[in-house]
Amino acid sequence: MTEVITLAHGSGGKMTHDLIDSIFFKYFSNDILMQGNDSALLDLPGGKAAFTTDSFVISPVFFRGGNIGKLAVCGTVNDLASSGAIPMYLSCGFIIEEGLPVGDLEKIVRSMGETAMECGVKIVTGDTKVVQKGAADKVFINTSGIGFIPEGVCLSGAYAKPGDSIIVTGTIGEHGCSILLEREMLEINSEISSDCASLNKMVERVLGVTKDIHVLRDPTRGGLATTLNEIAKQSGVGIRLYDEKVPVREDVRGICELLGLDPMYMANEGKMIIILPQSSVEPVMNVLKREKQGANACVIGEVIAEPAGRVLMKTVTGGNRIVDMLVGDQLPRIC
Amino acid sequence: MTEVITLAHGSGGKMTHDLIDSIFFKYFSNDILMQGNDSALLDLPGGKAAFTTDSFVISPVFFRGGNIGKLAVCGTVNDLASSGAIPMYLSCGFIIEEGLPVGDLEKIVRSMGETAMECGVKIVTGDTKVVQKGAADKVFINTSGIGFIPEGVCLSGAYAKPGDSIIVTGTIGEHGCSILLEREMLEINSEISSDCASLNKMVERVLGVTKDIHVLRDPTRGGLATTLNEIAKQSGVGIRLYDEKVPVREDVRGICELLGLDPMYMANEGKMIIILPQSSVEPVMNVLKREKQGANACVIGEVIAEPAGRVLMKTVTGGNRIVDMLVGDQLPRIC
Repeated sequence: MTEVITLAHGSGGKMTHDLIDSIFFKYFSNDILMQGNDSALLDLPGGKAAFTTDSFVISPVFFRGGNIGKLAVCGTVNDLASSGAIPMYLSCGFIIEEGLPVGDLEKIVRSMGETAMECGVKIVTGDTKVVQKGAADKVFINTSGIGFIPEGVCLSGAYAKPGDSIIVTGTIGEHGCSILLEREMLEINSEISSDCASLNKMVERVLGVTKDIHVLRDPTRGGLATTLNEIAKQSGVGIRLYDEKVPVREDVRGICELLGLDPMYMANEGKMIIILPQSSVEPVMNVLKREKQGANACVIGEVIAEPAGRVLMKTVTGGNRIVDMLVGDQLPRIC
Repeated sequence: MTEVITLAHGSGGKMTHDLIDSIFFKYFSNDILMQGNDSALLDLPGGKAAFTTDSFVISPVFFRGGNIGKLAVCGTVNDLASSGAIPMYLSCGFIIEEGLPVGDLEKIVRSMGETAMECGVKIVTGDTKVVQKGAADKVFINTSGIGFIPEGVCLSGAYAKPGDSIIVTGTIGEHGCSILLEREMLEINSEISSDCASLNKMVERVLGVTKDIHVLRDPTRGGLATTLNEIAKQSGVGIRLYDEKVPVREDVRGICELLGLDPMYMANEGKMIIILPQSSVEPVMNVLKREKQGANACVIGEVIAEPAGRVLMKTVTGGNRIVDMLVGDQLPRIC
């Protein structure tokens, strides 16, 4: 480990995982934390609950398709939905840089209120800190959330099984690509906007047709490649993807090629990975196809026994290449 | 309202309350949030729970008596304890400035782990973000927490009643004073260190002898004066304090006089205000006196009917002066 924290430690990729293993798990170790899912599963007197937290430091604060406030609500709601929970309550903690226009704060807060309403969650507690100019960049938001897990729902990144199919609920890379374009003020004429969206209602409807689903997870920081690697390691299985099946918009693919980036590592903020037995694929795809956020859902691969902990990409020419976790940081402050 | 966010908006005083009323309550309005306590009270299937969040931006990160990590655990645990809850689960979200020594992060995390163990809470979920050098100041930590409220416990800032007594569990102003000394590197020879401590075990023992207590709240940002003003407004009552009864260490009083500050507005991080019927005072004081964190507990005043929403200080000479909420910001980034 390097001696100072670098941007790569916050990438969501390999170095983030190393930091979590070597420091956070070392001192915070307990049975619930070690489950290693996006939400902690709590056994409460009245049933199972999910609890999750996320801090948002995205730059710029306003972007095509959303803003830091909408993202903060969707991000935490989606983490709860990934555990199959019905999101119920959110907290929000603001760290604001002195000098932020009150009008900007109001836009962000209004957007959080509207998004919470759409998701059916209540923001029930909060905190506001202000730091001197230069001690933070505009505004950072933490949202933590609690949801309840319906009877019969049993999901975890550890439950992928050989033979399972892998669905992604839509085209990948839009969030990362859109932020990159805004931030670098690249003069590329494009229609790409962030896919930032809450997915809890869609997940509810999916679980309404079948509870025979093994893993749900949203491929945010580190992108589809990193999230699938996490699942492969957590479940002790291999994952084989079909290159031509991974849905990517043409413009996203073009911009990535131009800039030497890979959409597989670009962040998504409105997509879900669903890993499920083949028998559940048809009913789940039927539900997804009727959803705005699921219309472009595709089966992109399958779970295999070996090589355990690895993600392979089967290319159109029949070759196999290893798809690793994100190493370094493709794009800092993406969420 | 000014057009940009100022440090005073984060003081915990008057401008923080104005911001909460004019923006957060406007867009997030719901029955639970509007209770206006440090923790939200949730009616869960298995009983009552408390949910709270706090972001910590204290500077310096390491100080006499603690560090940002210990503070982050104690602060959230104490907010839960203020609702009478048994703290159970914490989340933690780190925002780290690129370049932070990994050794500093490890010290902070170790301290969080140790403090969590002492409090009997589990840190069950977390998040790590890293921002570029200059986009944050060293490290900010959000902790959110969940606790369960035992049967028969019913506390709120809205429940103070005329005739109630007011206890503070120890000498005030040490946290604020100690941070001020460290930060300004004032060459004052002093023994003052932060009172940063978790109070949940003490609160449990207090509630073990009587549940006939109306309000618990920890006087952090904005100090005793601001917190009592909050309670007076929330309960629609007046509060009369006895000047000579408010416990302040001699060295804290001296430094405050030297610098023109008032200990009544200095932050505390290991003190609790307890408002309770006179009949509960003796049993509660008996418990407190046996506790390390309660040995200097004093009855400092009483709840009166009028003037509603006001805090008065009865001076030794028999006069009454109004003690207002903190206006402006006495000391930014105190927690």
